[in-house]
Amino acid sequence: MNTSYNVIAGQSVERLAALSDGIFAVAMTLLVLDLRVPAIEAVHSEHDLWRSLLALSPRLLMYMMSFMTLGIFWVGQQTQLNYLARADRSLSWIHIAFLFVVSITPFSTALLAEFPAYRIALVFYWLNILLLGTALYFSWVCATRTGLVKNEMPPDVPAAIKRRIVIGQSLYAFGALLCIFNTYWSIMFIVFVQLNYAIAPRIRRAISR
Amino acid sequence: MNTSYNVIAGQSVERLAALSDGIFAVAMTLLVLDLRVPAIEAVHSEHDLWRSLLALSPRLLMYMMSFMTLGIFWVGQQTQLNYLARADRSLSWIHIAFLFVVSITPFSTALLAEFPAYRIALVFYWLNILLLGTALYFSWVCATRTGLVKNEMPPDVPAAIKRRIVIGQSLYAFGALLCIFNTYWSIMFIVFVQLNYAIAPRIRRAISR
Amino acid sequence: MNTSYNVIAGQSVERLAALSDGIFAVAMTLLVLDLRVPAIEAVHSEHDLWRSLLALSPRLLMYMMSFMTLGIFWVGQQTQLNYLARADRSLSWIHIAFLFVVSITPFSTALLAEFPAYRIALVFYWLNILLLGTALYFSWVCATRTGLVKNEMPPDVPAAIKRRIVIGQSLYAFGALLCIFNTYWSIMFIVFVQLNYAIAPRIRRAISR
Amino acid sequence: MNTSYNVIAGQSVERLAALSDGIFAVAMTLLVLDLRVPAIEAVHSEHDLWRSLLALSPRLLMYMMSFMTLGIFWVGQQTQLNYLARADRSLSWIHIAFLFVVSITPFSTALLAEFPAYRIALVFYWLNILLLGTALYFSWVCATRTGLVKNEMPPDVPAAIKRRIVIGQSLYAFGALLCIFNTYWSIMFIVFVQLNYAIAPRIRRAISR
Repeated sequence: MNTSYNVIAGQSVERLAALSDGIFAVAMTLLVLDLRVPAIEAVHSEHDLWRSLLALSPRLLMYMMSFMTLGIFWVGQQTQLNYLARADRSLSWIHIAFLFVVSITPFSTALLAEFPAYRIALVFYWLNILLLGTALYFSWVCATRTGLVKNEMPPDVPAAIKRRIVIGQSLYAFGALLCIFNTYWSIMFIVFVQLNYAIAPRIRRAISR
Repeated sequence: MNTSYNVIAGQSVERLAALSDGIFAVAMTLLVLDLRVPAIEAVHSEHDLWRSLLALSPRLLMYMMSFMTLGIFWVGQQTQLNYLARADRSLSWIHIAFLFVVSITPFSTALLAEFPAYRIALVFYWLNILLLGTALYFSWVCATRTGLVKNEMPPDVPAAIKRRIVIGQSLYAFGALLCIFNTYWSIMFIVFVQLNYAIAPRIRRAISR
Repeated sequence: MNTSYNVIAGQSVERLAALSDGIFAVAMTLLVLDLRVPAIEAVHSEHDLWRSLLALSPRLLMYMMSFMTLGIFWVGQQTQLNYLARADRSLSWIHIAFLFVVSITPFSTALLAEFPAYRIALVFYWLNILLLGTALYFSWVCATRTGLVKNEMPPDVPAAIKRRIVIGQSLYAFGALLCIFNTYWSIMFIVFVQLNYAIAPRIRRAISR
Repeated sequence: MNTSYNVIAGQSVERLAALSDGIFAVAMTLLVLDLRVPAIEAVHSEHDLWRSLLALSPRLLMYMMSFMTLGIFWVGQQTQLNYLARADRSLSWIHIAFLFVVSITPFSTALLAEFPAYRIALVFYWLNILLLGTALYFSWVCATRTGLVKNEMPPDVPAAIKRRIVIGQSLYAFGALLCIFNTYWSIMFIVFVQLNYAIAPRIRRAISR
């Protein structure tokens, strides 16, 4: 009976992108609220202020890490949406689920930053990244199967997008597995993978120039 | 005297959509602020951390529920706006009223999650959903009557949009009525209806494939 | 020397509109953070919950008032931007100043709602509205003088936009003046003017139909 | 192996602009959360309210300063993006780094406003501005070298954009250096430079009219 509605609902890629950008923007700035200026009563010299700022540096690092993680998945989602001619209701809901996980990411990052020696915090963080990757993979499968992609898309793009997610998630899973030995190995490996996604292509290009 | 202004004001569907996406993005991420990382003093073992996270799970569920409710009405509003050629001042104000109720939704959800056994919390939540539906219905009536819709809109779309709202709101009202017996029956029924809107079409399609 | 930069800077109306929508969205939802679910310890019956919610109603009203005020100026700004072919650096800065006042508006509203009997609160609120109107007026003068408006704009639009701001601000100023007698008269008058802007055209049309 | 993905990722200037506008909007309104309405218990007369509001004025000023700083860099980023035909993955990541610094800016401003006599606060603030400028400069170098700019761009634009950043950053650096004598001289000089960017062209034009 309401088939007709399901056919017409959620077709705008632009609106999906705009909602995504809004949620990413809020999620990316959420942890900045934890950076509070030191209380003026506790600071009596340049040295005191320096120490107060140093005490804030773990939070700043955690914030940077959360920003980078979300940046990676923002680029990933954007790449997919750029190739969509239109959306449909199912795809919209996959992305709403994706955005839900996006908004949880600052919490997972803060949890891991607060409890870096705890396996539960690491597994929670990894599950978060796994869900982000799964949602994007599922979204792409849905989009290509239902014919939502643009006609002018080069034929090797779908495989490249899938391969990228699978390789990334394999690396993250391997990193998470390292927590059997030590959670710090896991964290270092995962951060290294993320830095690689964010910075590496630029470095590689700079070298080859 | 100021007729002329009323004629020219509020015509941009794009701006209305952008404001909506912004308010939806903030409203959808508002409850994530209630997810706080457990205090490091209270956690001395993996077991402690696990219990602290379990204690957070009702908030996480409540957040998910709020996200889903807003997702449903975001898709609903988007479907309407996609068919509008332009807006006018009255339509803009109906949507500003709609967005006001959108921004209240996290509060209603949190209220119901905190007091699931209280009829007042349930009625408040239902009134919230009723107002969201009413605003969208009223907006559609206004848009079709004033000729703001696109010419290329298929002729069966207006009826489909109205039917959808009426059926949805009837189900929600029936769910709310169940609180005469037990508020938990109401909640389960309403969540079931919402899950149906979010997930069902995808499942149905997956089965029929 | 840097003339060239000033000529090329800040030309995108779309970006200006997007920043505006973002800031309006955050400002409009800011006061919703003050709506907190009643503490579960204080509530032992439906009656308790009802009273707790009643105790929240002034905040809800205040929030509604802030939302409406910002809605009025969002429609006003949008109407102007719709007629702009492009922006320039000066215009961008007028709107950045406008957005600054927009982001202060929830504070002014909360101040007036907390201290309705105090003239300073009323004058602060009125200054806020005055600055919003002045910025929009100044922006329009700048846009029409510098030739940033679209060619296809009907010739009576500039006067209509200016007239609207002058009439509105005159009414607000008259309302503010009433505080010589009683601040409550001022508040009632100003809220009446605002309701008139938000609802009246729709009612008038409904009657004339 | 994943070259193909790097080629297709992060190409949308529109999405980059939308994420930027979202993050700027949140960052610009962040400090408004520190403006809290005075407690009703502490206010017994118009005079008390006046004093409470005066006590808030440093925060308001600090907020204004943060808003202005971010406004300057928003205009700067927008000017660049307007000339881009498309983005690529490296450029996207430069801008994500830029946005990270943007979101830190309210913190730096608040720090300097709280500790105006401390050199560390001043150097922190200056480093913030330096990083913003460096990111924009690096982004422009990357965009022009990789051929991401629009073909119809006037030939003197690239030099104008670079010159602007270099001149601005030189002035800021000179201002920061003044802290050898006195941090207040630095602050006054920097605020003067910023006011010059925000207001001056309009004044100059008004005079030459």
